[in-house]
Amino acid sequence: METFEHTVEMHPSRWGDPARAGALPEPARGLVELVFGLDERPALDDVAPPEPGIAPGLVAGLAELVGPAHVRTDDLTRRLRTRGKSTPDLLRQRAGDLTDAPDVVVRPGDHDQVAAVLAFAVEHHLAVVPFGGGTSVTGGLAARRDGYAGLVSLDLVRMKRLLAVDPTSMTATLEPGLRGPEAEALLAAEGLTLGHFPQSFEHASIGGFAATRSSGQSSAGYGRFDALVVALRVATPRGELRLGSAPATAAGPDLRQLLLGSEGAFGVITEVTVRVRRLPAEKVYEGWRWPSFADGAAAMRTLAQTGLLPTVLRLSDEHESALNLARPAELGSGDAGGCLMVVGHEGEPAVVATRRRAVADVLAGLGGTPLGEEPGRAWARGRFDAPYLRDSMLDVGVLVETLETATFWSDVERLYDDVRTALTGALGEPVLVLCHISHVYETGCSLYFTVAAKAGEEPIERWRAAKAAASDAIVAAGATITHHHAVGTDHRPWLAAEIGELGVSVLRAVKADLDPTGILNPGVLVP
Amino acid sequence: METFEHTVEMHPSRWGDPARAGALPEPARGLVELVFGLDERPALDDVAPPEPGIAPGLVAGLAELVGPAHVRTDDLTRRLRTRGKSTPDLLRQRAGDLTDAPDVVVRPGDHDQVAAVLAFAVEHHLAVVPFGGGTSVTGGLAARRDGYAGLVSLDLVRMKRLLAVDPTSMTATLEPGLRGPEAEALLAAEGLTLGHFPQSFEHASIGGFAATRSSGQSSAGYGRFDALVVALRVATPRGELRLGSAPATAAGPDLRQLLLGSEGAFGVITEVTVRVRRLPAEKVYEGWRWPSFADGAAAMRTLAQTGLLPTVLRLSDEHESALNLARPAELGSGDAGGCLMVVGHEGEPAVVATRRRAVADVLAGLGGTPLGEEPGRAWARGRFDAPYLRDSMLDVGVLVETLETATFWSDVERLYDDVRTALTGALGEPVLVLCHISHVYETGCSLYFTVAAKAGEEPIERWRAAKAAASDAIVAAGATITHHHAVGTDHRPWLAAEIGELGVSVLRAVKADLDPTGILNPGVLVP
Repeated sequence: METFEHTVEMHPSRWGDPARAGALPEPARGLVELVFGLDERPALDDVAPPEPGIAPGLVAGLAELVGPAHVRTDDLTRRLRTRGKSTPDLLRQRAGDLTDAPDVVVRPGDHDQVAAVLAFAVEHHLAVVPFGGGTSVTGGLAARRDGYAGLVSLDLVRMKRLLAVDPTSMTATLEPGLRGPEAEALLAAEGLTLGHFPQSFEHASIGGFAATRSSGQSSAGYGRFDALVVALRVATPRGELRLGSAPATAAGPDLRQLLLGSEGAFGVITEVTVRVRRLPAEKVYEGWRWPSFADGAAAMRTLAQTGLLPTVLRLSDEHESALNLARPAELGSGDAGGCLMVVGHEGEPAVVATRRRAVADVLAGLGGTPLGEEPGRAWARGRFDAPYLRDSMLDVGVLVETLETATFWSDVERLYDDVRTALTGALGEPVLVLCHISHVYETGCSLYFTVAAKAGEEPIERWRAAKAAASDAIVAAGATITHHHAVGTDHRPWLAAEIGELGVSVLRAVKADLDPTGILNPGVLVP
Repeated sequence: METFEHTVEMHPSRWGDPARAGALPEPARGLVELVFGLDERPALDDVAPPEPGIAPGLVAGLAELVGPAHVRTDDLTRRLRTRGKSTPDLLRQRAGDLTDAPDVVVRPGDHDQVAAVLAFAVEHHLAVVPFGGGTSVTGGLAARRDGYAGLVSLDLVRMKRLLAVDPTSMTATLEPGLRGPEAEALLAAEGLTLGHFPQSFEHASIGGFAATRSSGQSSAGYGRFDALVVALRVATPRGELRLGSAPATAAGPDLRQLLLGSEGAFGVITEVTVRVRRLPAEKVYEGWRWPSFADGAAAMRTLAQTGLLPTVLRLSDEHESALNLARPAELGSGDAGGCLMVVGHEGEPAVVATRRRAVADVLAGLGGTPLGEEPGRAWARGRFDAPYLRDSMLDVGVLVETLETATFWSDVERLYDDVRTALTGALGEPVLVLCHISHVYETGCSLYFTVAAKAGEEPIERWRAAKAAASDAIVAAGATITHHHAVGTDHRPWLAAEIGELGVSVLRAVKADLDPTGILNPGVLVP
């Protein structure tokens, strides 16, 4: 598979590094056969995208802006820039449906080239889809193309410099095309870390983290990505925005917070200045067993509300503990069940030791049973692997989808029940629903659901039915439609329920101001 | 002086509780005489505002919406709602200039009445100035009135309920008219605190804290007000906004952050849901001496970057330490100088003890000298008193102004020098400039300057010259024009330098969407 400037390209119809794609391992295969039956479905991976629907003169014009080597219309490049990695994205790609393929892939080298491409796109009414890591799981790269003179994938892969480090202020300025590991490697050379490790870490980009309000597995300790962002530089069709002049300000509304989560619909983020931390000298992850999900959640709440949040804090419900992370011997005797919590501490050894002892005292006092480091190490080993399993399951005809929400502590139990009920009832047949809490705050937490069901004859329709049932339940409970996966196109129908019609009107007004001809990621985010 | 529903009204031409107004105490008077000379200037406190310039039918219409008892056009009420408490506001008020007096003061009782008043104001093109505590020090209540059928002060003083408490999620929902002490008293009855104590605490309101992105003296421990806000309800001319459905979300841009800092120009905040904490069982404040401002600042940076921020952390420069907080015996022998740091810890006694020891170890290791609790107690006793001194100084012909900014650690020294130089050179005669750091972050800190100079014949012009010099220096240094005082009208000329012309354009677009006829706080915030 092609790599571009040392960035590993993901498989066009699967998650992640093609070298790591593989068949469902035994005994998972046996378990799947037992529950759902096996229904082998090879992907159609050699379909060519439609001919580019853009005038050759426009391609030549783009080549003048960024150089001919950085404008591509070949089939493979266009296939690799077709949509993201949502379950419907993968299903369409596997079925050989490449109707969303961009007409041309353009790779600007810096802010000025991005600005030039946007100006050209305005002039010629080209739709522009900013492409970072391509890891969207909510249809954030499936833009509308009708009515445009062409669909341009604005691939930021060349923009991967560490532009500045300020070790006194503990900030670093990064370009948007840096993938997670690339950014961490550049920072590690300075003894620093960003500390942002979402499940998509190996392939997602700095620009994408900012544009989608990403949250990572260590965000309890390091903060969500939106909390890490100090300053942004953004290219828009109406010019440049530079936001973030101080650690904190009262100079009016915080416009950075309009660009964070803007999903490429308001502008293209070309520089991100982030708060960084010293590379931790020690990392320790350990397991704890809880009699129930509710007991474990209550313990998480206590930690958050007493200022004792570890760096990593996760809790699987009974179903996920039994099935996904199962080491039954550790979780107690057979049907006794129980829930697995992973607690991680990172930092200077003395700080880690003090912190670990304080957290352990609280957890033990609340009824948790320490399981030692092995469950923590097992989690850390596989922390980025789950998306590969989804493809292996699709190979044998099983849909696996994840969705996440968040609410306040007093509503967690009800939201959990409501979403589970909605998901188990959505398809009228056995559905497997697992859940964990992966992000914890003083006032509440996230709930992350994994759902598995037979793909059936109409897998996208079945996905749509389950997604609608879950989303309806979430907005009915007053929770957020997405805690860290962003809106994309999949959550767009529920955005007005969350922020109101007037909130949507404000988004439209901002979009109209920054992108008056509507060339940026059309149809994404804004209903 | 009138009180309304037990809320203490501030003096119309001075800061704070009229009962606490007083002459400059000796020996301050002696010192002022020595440096500036005494130039007694009694305020003209018995001037009546101009006749209300609003049609009587409109006053009657407003009375129908909120009840006749809650619509006032008497001289005293209108004087009490004329402008805020900036130095130019006070100078104009003292000179008997009441040209900005509202034509009518309207006191809605709930969200629906606010919405009804806004609809009425749109229909009849009345300018509306939302009034919380009236403590603005940046001209945030000096709205433009030309072209409107009248100027309405929308006084939120009746909206002072604690609407909800969720002790599980540790949130509380407050109405905007609650003054700081009123909100704390209601929360204290539940064993809770907001922990927000700006210098204006005794008079400022919950709605104002949100609308101006307030930051308090204990914000190192409790968080800035914008970080405390979980959810907002806002009445706008185009309807209602309800924002904040979860502790964190990736459902697009964070629109709460557009309303925080919107200074009444986008809508009227009618409910604020905040994160709360348990009332601290212990509070301890202590003093530390540093050889220099730079040494103390470096120690603050170490605390912030190692996760050891106390609840309160402040550092006065050499000038402020010597003059303002001076207890020379404690700060070392005479001209040896030195800088005073105040370090405060609040919480459970065991946590306070551990934290205090850890912080003291760091500070002692970096060259700080502990001064015990007396300097801390002295600071705590007088923490809300400084604004009274400004009036006593105006009484004897001395202008005292404060202004604040923030920047990243690597730029602090340069910014400090640049602003000091600008201020000392602005008037071509002796100016006293003091500075402290009161807000500390991982990436930087605030700088809070106090300036004193002779009022002279044209005090407002002199104020304007000094303000412009300082503001020019701040934006030239790339720092923020205001860390916690908001934009108002005084900082408006420099907003574009901070957020760019395109940033201003976005603010205008949002304003045009939410307030299409421009009735809300005209001329405030948006250039």
